[in-house]
Amino acid sequence: MTKTFKSKLDFAKFLAMEAGKLARDQYRRKDDEFISVKGLQDFVTTADRQVEELIRALISQYYPTDAVLGEEDGNTGHGDALWVVDPIDGTANFMRGLPDWAVSIAYCENGNIELGVIYAADRDELCWARKGQGAFCNDQPLHVSDCSRPDQALLLLGRSSRGPLQNYLDIIRLTIAAKMEYRRNGSAAISLMSVAQGRAEGYYEAHLNAWDALAGILIIREAGGLVHAKSVPETLKNGSGIVAVTPMLERVVLEVTGTDPDITTEAEVMT
Amino acid sequence: MTKTFKSKLDFAKFLAMEAGKLARDQYRRKDDEFISVKGLQDFVTTADRQVEELIRALISQYYPTDAVLGEEDGNTGHGDALWVVDPIDGTANFMRGLPDWAVSIAYCENGNIELGVIYAADRDELCWARKGQGAFCNDQPLHVSDCSRPDQALLLLGRSSRGPLQNYLDIIRLTIAAKMEYRRNGSAAISLMSVAQGRAEGYYEAHLNAWDALAGILIIREAGGLVHAKSVPETLKNGSGIVAVTPMLERVVLEVTGTDPDITTEAEVMT
Repeated sequence: MTKTFKSKLDFAKFLAMEAGKLARDQYRRKDDEFISVKGLQDFVTTADRQVEELIRALISQYYPTDAVLGEEDGNTGHGDALWVVDPIDGTANFMRGLPDWAVSIAYCENGNIELGVIYAADRDELCWARKGQGAFCNDQPLHVSDCSRPDQALLLLGRSSRGPLQNYLDIIRLTIAAKMEYRRNGSAAISLMSVAQGRAEGYYEAHLNAWDALAGILIIREAGGLVHAKSVPETLKNGSGIVAVTPMLERVVLEVTGTDPDITTEAEVMT
Repeated sequence: MTKTFKSKLDFAKFLAMEAGKLARDQYRRKDDEFISVKGLQDFVTTADRQVEELIRALISQYYPTDAVLGEEDGNTGHGDALWVVDPIDGTANFMRGLPDWAVSIAYCENGNIELGVIYAADRDELCWARKGQGAFCNDQPLHVSDCSRPDQALLLLGRSSRGPLQNYLDIIRLTIAAKMEYRRNGSAAISLMSVAQGRAEGYYEAHLNAWDALAGILIIREAGGLVHAKSVPETLKNGSGIVAVTPMLERVVLEVTGTDPDITTEAEVMT
């Protein structure tokens, strides 16, 4: 049955929730169908693929001329309207039943992020933003934290295997020296969403791919946060390091993460 | 109204769920009553106290001769029947809306942990164990993970401010060198519960207090896991370091965390 959508944003929210539901169904069936026969790694690969296939099938049904960049199947289609999708961000959490995983979907036009949706299905939290129109979670407006004291702040530190471990350990050390708390949850989308929700004051990761990052970048900016990352076209090509932070704690988080404030701006710049 | 309970286990489950419900109510009301006036730290202190007061009031109503050791109000009462309670484990998560916090309640007799209950209210997951009778989560039996490959394993690394930071960073380095994933979630009770649930293969923290640890220790052992920690009487007095791990990965996790296997056994020994 074909549904109708008032806007691409409504479609994107539907897409993320359908994808999240399918992922949860796959998880519930995993013991019967997978683990004993094929093992956990095959299970998560198959779940990831099937969820991305569903997302691609729905986009091609409703917006057949739009292009798609997905974690599993790369780039398909051409043109300036581009969906960037991570079917399951935080797969290592997902496959173990840890709730910190999410579907992440961004929609870009001409190199700008126009829409971002993150659905944390195990928490039933749907966060979204449309450029210039604010960010929301389950219909409530989102605002980043206004905490101004590092000793009451929380920094989420993602560890990318594409960055040197020593740098990561140094950042933990500097974070604690600055009296901030830190967490590592294993999902970029959940981390970005947490900053937008005001649950953490910052998030750093040495390298993310576009499908991990773009939806969350827009949601944070629309919630009043700052993101230091490469431009959208560069991120689409090679990924980017990321520092997402509240205005109140920008200086200390840039210092702790070794991000040079002189070569970054509030807009879409580099780490 | 006075309820009746079939057993102390049923009472302990009721206690944990009532406490979790009160904590969630407090969180929902925090914006109105606290943040603008008193700040986040006052909010969490008050919530912690009120939840512990509820727990103490219910214990004294139903089991008036039992002793209680709680995080907030210390030791009250005497005798061999002792409740050990952490009203909100993971307060820094709780006060920010991050779901990784839990109520943790252990019941000890004569220096043994007889009952353990952990209620993760934001996930609505109630885990419990009675000594010798297995562990359960929302009525489903719990079993630790049977993963035998470090490169598919996940270690939860708590950071205690009572242990040297360098040791903690060294353990992260060794964990990654052993090809294991790691997370830091900021709650001992959630970490212990995750090992019992098979969602992580191990958990390490340099120091825990008794109210953080005892319920989870029993739940993990009853789910088939191993815990290296000081004896219950010693833990009650001074706390203990802890290594909780699955049998399949005991050797590698003891190595990575620098725990000497010669001076620990499966039972209640030291780190």
